[in-house]
Amino acid sequence: MKILFIVCDGMGDRLTKGKTPLEKAKTPNMDFIAKKGICGIMDTVAQGVRPGSDTAHLSLFGYNPYEVYTGRGPFEAFGVGLNLKKGDVALRCNFATIKNSKIIDRRAGRAEFGLNEIAKEFDSMKIDDVRVIFKKGSGHRAVLVFRGKNLSSKISDVDPEEELKNYNLSHPLDKTKEAKRTAEILNKFTKLSEKILKKHPVNEERIKKGMLPANVIISRGAGIMPDIKSFKDKDGLSAACVSATTLIKGVCRALGMDIIEVEGATGHFDSNISGKAISAIKALKKYDFVFLHIKGTDEVSHDGNFNKKVKMIERIDKEVIKVILDNVNLKEITLALTSDHSTPINIRHHSADPVPLAILGDVRTDDIKKFSERSCAKGGLNRICGRNLMGILLDLCNRAELFGA
Amino acid sequence: MKILFIVCDGMGDRLTKGKTPLEKAKTPNMDFIAKKGICGIMDTVAQGVRPGSDTAHLSLFGYNPYEVYTGRGPFEAFGVGLNLKKGDVALRCNFATIKNSKIIDRRAGRAEFGLNEIAKEFDSMKIDDVRVIFKKGSGHRAVLVFRGKNLSSKISDVDPEEELKNYNLSHPLDKTKEAKRTAEILNKFTKLSEKILKKHPVNEERIKKGMLPANVIISRGAGIMPDIKSFKDKDGLSAACVSATTLIKGVCRALGMDIIEVEGATGHFDSNISGKAISAIKALKKYDFVFLHIKGTDEVSHDGNFNKKVKMIERIDKEVIKVILDNVNLKEITLALTSDHSTPINIRHHSADPVPLAILGDVRTDDIKKFSERSCAKGGLNRICGRNLMGILLDLCNRAELFGA
Repeated sequence: MKILFIVCDGMGDRLTKGKTPLEKAKTPNMDFIAKKGICGIMDTVAQGVRPGSDTAHLSLFGYNPYEVYTGRGPFEAFGVGLNLKKGDVALRCNFATIKNSKIIDRRAGRAEFGLNEIAKEFDSMKIDDVRVIFKKGSGHRAVLVFRGKNLSSKISDVDPEEELKNYNLSHPLDKTKEAKRTAEILNKFTKLSEKILKKHPVNEERIKKGMLPANVIISRGAGIMPDIKSFKDKDGLSAACVSATTLIKGVCRALGMDIIEVEGATGHFDSNISGKAISAIKALKKYDFVFLHIKGTDEVSHDGNFNKKVKMIERIDKEVIKVILDNVNLKEITLALTSDHSTPINIRHHSADPVPLAILGDVRTDDIKKFSERSCAKGGLNRICGRNLMGILLDLCNRAELFGA
Repeated sequence: MKILFIVCDGMGDRLTKGKTPLEKAKTPNMDFIAKKGICGIMDTVAQGVRPGSDTAHLSLFGYNPYEVYTGRGPFEAFGVGLNLKKGDVALRCNFATIKNSKIIDRRAGRAEFGLNEIAKEFDSMKIDDVRVIFKKGSGHRAVLVFRGKNLSSKISDVDPEEELKNYNLSHPLDKTKEAKRTAEILNKFTKLSEKILKKHPVNEERIKKGMLPANVIISRGAGIMPDIKSFKDKDGLSAACVSATTLIKGVCRALGMDIIEVEGATGHFDSNISGKAISAIKALKKYDFVFLHIKGTDEVSHDGNFNKKVKMIERIDKEVIKVILDNVNLKEITLALTSDHSTPINIRHHSADPVPLAILGDVRTDDIKKFSERSCAKGGLNRICGRNLMGILLDLCNRAELFGA
């Protein structure tokens, strides 16, 4: 028995004109899973907690985010292909444009030209006794890692997340020597980025081409790499991830999962989600656990677009769920369909509302016929905590360990 | 978005002739909240735990009572207007009447005459290196506080909670020096109270008036003041409490909430509960969080009076809930209606049965039409833990913090 775990990011919602997008959408294939399976609602992190996508996924994979999560930095680093060691401190960065001590564009005009070349200037440099690892991510994004002894992630952000003001100097967020020292190193790095980039040939070329110069690197979301058990060591499952989202790929890579790249998979509304479904189906031949992540539902939620969310859900139903139901042997898999958190259209950000969950496999079933937030609330699973889901799925596959005799 | 939080003390119940008091009562206004809102059942402290009103309220306000609660003493102290510091040990006291080493009345005949004057004899005295703070509460009650270094609340009660026997000497409940020392100081205090009160002029006057002398102070419920974060610091909400119950007011004052006093509010069956409703509505103009506590339901439950409980619930429905529904703008508030614990009529004390809960606001709604224990058990919230309620309410008001990215 293998596990296919499908997470539609931010799919849960509240009511708009009396209905949630899931209730409004025509989803015969999701409904089939609800009907033939067992349903429930789930607090991915905990009741009343607004989860990030990173903390939610850690929890859904069976980890305690309160133990292993200190910030998004390390997961961003894994997402761009870096391999962190325990104790590394990582931050998410933007290449930005600064003029007269004011950030005039936090994304350096979103122009990617030359950024890879610039990134190399910073990779492998040393600040005091600390090694710097620096890698460009997608677009204007990059990841900064400090490797050395006695570092801390308890430092404030450099990125002000606003324009027309100077960047912030990082300061320690607790009274430890480690935090003080790490903030100082980060400030040295930021100043060095200004100095190195001021007259960098890449920026001279960018200006010639009419682009904004990328003349400062601003950072945020410091996190320290935890001593984290691999997914395989934890549950004994070989695992693969099909996702187009750097942060989620990063969470999966940090846990030792293989990443399957799919052409045309973008994480946006028009992503090649049928391609992802096909990749997930193929991966089931090789792996015990296949995780399929679809981001579009969250994107349209942050945009506050109800109709587009309904359409995205209908696309997933037809291009992902139907393809899977038509092409896998349901007797050989336990399939779980859920969301990592709700992103209600009317508030446009993550909420603590529980998400719907349906599991198809050797389950008790119930009388739920529709996959939605309110119908699943009446399901046979009642209300569960996300961190317990892996145990439930392992058990349904007869792979769970006995506690006791 | 503001929060109005209504707690009817001890309202939950079990079946008497097939119905709970809430099921028997006519409660169109509570039912309106159930119908238009989302319902569930709630274990205020934890599943299978019989909560006190103090521990339940701490939990409902989002605190872990296993961390911040060591006894009722500190909350009684705050309830009578004292301001404790971290490490203070507080006890609840009775003025009692002792004769030939037997307590003949644990409440000194409930006569209040002269007790304030007596109380002053003890306030500000020193026993060894410990400062005594002593204040009369309502009726025959008082609060005793020890302020000093190395104190412990792990000491046994002096009050035997029975009459016609001598009071107990306090003894340490663990092997620490602190507990030994604190028990010794308490025993010195009790003996001193006998000595000072034996021939006190107030008692001579009381006897002349035909009252029992208040000639000993017996104490119980020792608790040490925890390092507790204020409600405002925890959740960022300005908060007010409308309650007539010393202990509950004490919990709220200890958390830094403002206390709103209402004329005629007594905590009894005939309390001025409509006055409390009006005060709560007014308070919503000034505060982010208004807590309205009604005690009468618990009082009649401890008396084992089913019909009176039904009547009290109907009074609350008409004089509190209707007044609120008619006078607040429901678009501007998240309203939660619940109980701190069940006090079943047939057992006359607190039970671990979960309480019904209904929340009105930007919620998913369900198909519950009646506010009662059994109907709410089928609601869209399913079964939640009391300590998570604040997170859920904050989230519904878009005031919850994100955990992760």
